[in-house]
Order: sequence, then C-alpha cells, then structure tokens
Amino acid sequence: MRMATVTLPDTVGTTAAIEIEGRWHALPAADLSELLAAGIAPVPGDELAGARPTLPLPRPGKVICCGLNYGDHIAETGREKPSYPTLFAKYADTLLAPGADIVLPAHDGLELDWEAELAVVVGAELRHATPAEAEAAIAGYTVANDISVRDWQRRTLQWFQGKAWDATTPLGPVVVTPDELDPTSGVEVVCRVNGVERQRGNTKTLVFDSAALLSYISTFTVLRPGDVVLTGTPGGVGMGMEPPTYLRDGDVVETEIPGIGLLSNTVRIA
Amino acid sequence: MRMATVTLPDTVGTTAAIEIEGRWHALPAADLSELLAAGIAPVPGDELAGARPTLPLPRPGKVICCGLNYGDHIAETGREKPSYPTLFAKYADTLLAPGADIVLPAHDGLELDWEAELAVVVGAELRHATPAEAEAAIAGYTVANDISVRDWQRRTLQWFQGKAWDATTPLGPVVVTPDELDPTSGVEVVCRVNGVERQRGNTKTLVFDSAALLSYISTFTVLRPGDVVLTGTPGGVGMGMEPPTYLRDGDVVETEIPGIGLLSNTVRIA
Repeated sequence: MRMATVTLPDTVGTTAAIEIEGRWHALPAADLSELLAAGIAPVPGDELAGARPTLPLPRPGKVICCGLNYGDHIAETGREKPSYPTLFAKYADTLLAPGADIVLPAHDGLELDWEAELAVVVGAELRHATPAEAEAAIAGYTVANDISVRDWQRRTLQWFQGKAWDATTPLGPVVVTPDELDPTSGVEVVCRVNGVERQRGNTKTLVFDSAALLSYISTFTVLRPGDVVLTGTPGGVGMGMEPPTYLRDGDVVETEIPGIGLLSNTVRIA
Repeated sequence: MRMATVTLPDTVGTTAAIEIEGRWHALPAADLSELLAAGIAPVPGDELAGARPTLPLPRPGKVICCGLNYGDHIAETGREKPSYPTLFAKYADTLLAPGADIVLPAHDGLELDWEAELAVVVGAELRHATPAEAEAAIAGYTVANDISVRDWQRRTLQWFQGKAWDATTPLGPVVVTPDELDPTSGVEVVCRVNGVERQRGNTKTLVFDSAALLSYISTFTVLRPGDVVLTGTPGGVGMGMEPPTYLRDGDVVETEIPGIGLLSNTVRIA
C-alpha cells in the first residue's frame, strides 16, 4: 500500500488517503498521524480528485535520527564503523511538507547542508522490543532530508541545535508499507542539488537497519504509532566536498528513493 | 504564586492547583500543561483537602536541556567556558513525578548518575525572541534531576541515548512564578544521595541564564506554553568523583532548590 496525507483543491485541511491504481482514495482520518495513532484500518473510501500529498505525518511524538549509519558517510567524516547507533532527537516542528520551501534566516557563516535519508514510520507501540518484534511493527517507509545547519551543529558537542530548525526536514511524499518495499534487500537513497546528483547510497549497506534501530531505541524509550526514525545519510554531503559546498538561496534540493517517491524543496535564505 | 498538578485521595486523575497560605486550591484545568497551553487564568477555586503534588507538566511538547552551564561542572569535565549553550533534546516520556521511583533495568556496566537542575517553564509562545522578551515569557521555575545513564551516554558522540530513558527525570514538585523567585540573583541547586550532599551550585554562576537560553533556542525552534528547559547541572556529579561513583538499587536521590521545593526519588534497578 501507498498512503499519504493529501490536500484537496478548494478544501481547508487534509485527508488521509491511499493510492489505488494511481488514484487517491479517502481514508477515515485527517492525516496519517491520526490514522496510525487511532489504529484505524486503511479501508478505501471515495476517490479524491485533485489530491496532492503534503506532510504525511504532521504530529509524530518522536522524530529520532541516526547519524553515521552508512559506511561511505562514516568514512567521509573520518570516523570508524560504530558499535552503537549514534542517535539524536528532533521535534515534529522540524518537519516540512513535500514541495514546501526550506526557509532559513540569513546569518554570517551559514552552512546549510543536505542529508537524504530513508525514514521508518512506527506502526505499533514498541518497548523492549526484539528486532523481529520491531520489524513487525513497521508501518512503512518514506523519504526525508535531514537538512543541517552545519555552523550551528559544530558550535557545541551536541548536534541538536544544527538539526532542529523549524520546518527544515522535508518528509514524504508517501508512506509505503513493508509488503511493497524492503530496504534490507536494498533501495537507493538519492539527493540532487539543482539537478546534479550529490548522494546515492543503498540501504543494504546500512550499519543498523530499520528493525535494529527501532529495537535499540525501544530499550530506553517507548515508540508509538506515527513516530518517525530517520536512518542516516549516505556519503556525499556538502561538508564532505572539496572544497565544502553548501546550499544557497534558490537552490532546489531533490531527495528521492525510487519505489517511494521524490521530494523537491527550494531553499529560501531571507 | 506556587502552582502544581495535584492528586487527591480516592480520586482518579489530577487537578491543577495553586497554593494559598499553605493550602492547595483548585485551578480550572486537569494539570499545568493544560492550564498553560490553554492560557487559563490561575483563579483559585475550592480548597483541595489531601492534595499531593505530582508531575507538574505531564505533556510538554519540548524538553530541551543545556549541558555544561556551570563553571565548576565545566571544570570537572575538563572543558573550557563555552561561547554557545550545549543543547540536547528529551521527550515528555522522560519525566518522572516527585516521589516516584527511578526504575532502570539492570545491565552490565550500568553507570547511573545524578544532575540536579533548575528547570524553566515557558509561559508564552517564543520565536526569534530577545532575552527581554524571553524573560517576560517565563511562567515559572521548578526543580529537575537529569538522571543520566553514563555508559549509554558515552557509547556515541551524541548524549541523547543516555539522557532519554523513560521516567528517569524527576520534575517538580511545584512551579514558582518569577515574581517570587529570581534565579539571576541566585538560588541554590542541591543534590543529596542517601542524605550526603553531592552537589550545591548557585544559579547566579550560570554561564547562560534562563532568558538567554530561551532566547537562543527560539532562534531555531518555537517554544510554546508548557515547554520546559533544563538549565544544566553544577559540579559534583558522580562521574566527576574519585573514584567515579554511581547510583545503586535503593539509593535515595534528593534534589532541592530552596524557595521551590524538594524532589525525593528512590532508585530501583531491576
């Protein structure tokens, strides 16, 4: 199944939706956050003409990110393969809809970078879960870009302040269920800036796969339906280029996972 | 004013309350999270017999913590006075009620440490706020202990996984409004373990005071009524002792800020 939260022409608000033969049909919830939290069965309703996917999960209670999870990205940061996943937290305010502008206030030394990622959506409550239990609780997968303010990220030991700028993490456009997509057998994670490919990784090279991450996180905190875990970015970020290269006003960031979809977001530095 | 979320004998649920001449009176909300989020005026109602403060803010959208904010604690970690606050995020699930047990599963090498802190409660929405605007938006102050699982904290570069274990951060017992308590002129932050004083700092030695922290955070993310910011811990944590000393099953952690109140929580390692 391919599910989304969609907007409709001349209609306020959003509707959860499921794609059937290329057309969106209504699901009985305002968005996928509500659908998953309330455990509503995805029974298709009427066809929705003119539906456009927007932020699929507007209200995850937790958005937990894994850094340093692809071998080539670990190498470009000069580090060794880790024994444990490097985790940090974001809040729902960080998320941004497909197609929306990535708006940052201008400041001296701004270093805005891209990080294309596979995102896992939690479908059932998890606490002290084994990897098998975690895998069974995956609602689906979507695309994310953990856009990072590197100069703020480097200000202190903790990355949070470079990672949690409001409305800077594009997410979507759809959530694809595990029966249609298996990242452990390999899906490509791609980032293009102004049409030039900058990142292309494969999820089969993840150090910690989706189930391993959910299981590990559930050791210390509960995960609930609708929570999102970002699995890390492959090599090719701007700070790893020679010389380091960052996003500028007007740049178009395309983040794509074939089999899920494409996010296209324009940078606006004002 | 001194406000709390209280439980009542033989009553399910909680009530927001205000202390008048040593007695708790009802406020028209289920807890202080609701009171602040809805902007409900703290008009006292009936007296509440047998009221006992519990977790004052059960649902903050954000719990943002500052590390390395007291000179003596910075020194004991071997670091220099910072130019920027070191920030990391927690979720509401991390919070624990006054008097409740700090329950951790046993694991090899568990290093459970204490970090007494002043916590600031946000009273109005803040975004791109000046320190003066931030100061005017402070709803009050309470006591917290950022109990830390040091072995997990040190597993990776990012502290989150050592800081975000569910139900390990005692918070409360009351929220004191700024007209009654001024941390910039100095309040003491104390931690005792089994009656032995381990930490005593003074908030007038904070590198970044409450208003500075809220203003800085509001540069990148919105703060809303009921959000909580932990201002960091003074010197005297267990990992700074010679030899390093950690909490054990049955230990009683008392966290106190005179003028606010005392948290007493017992460690249970099962």
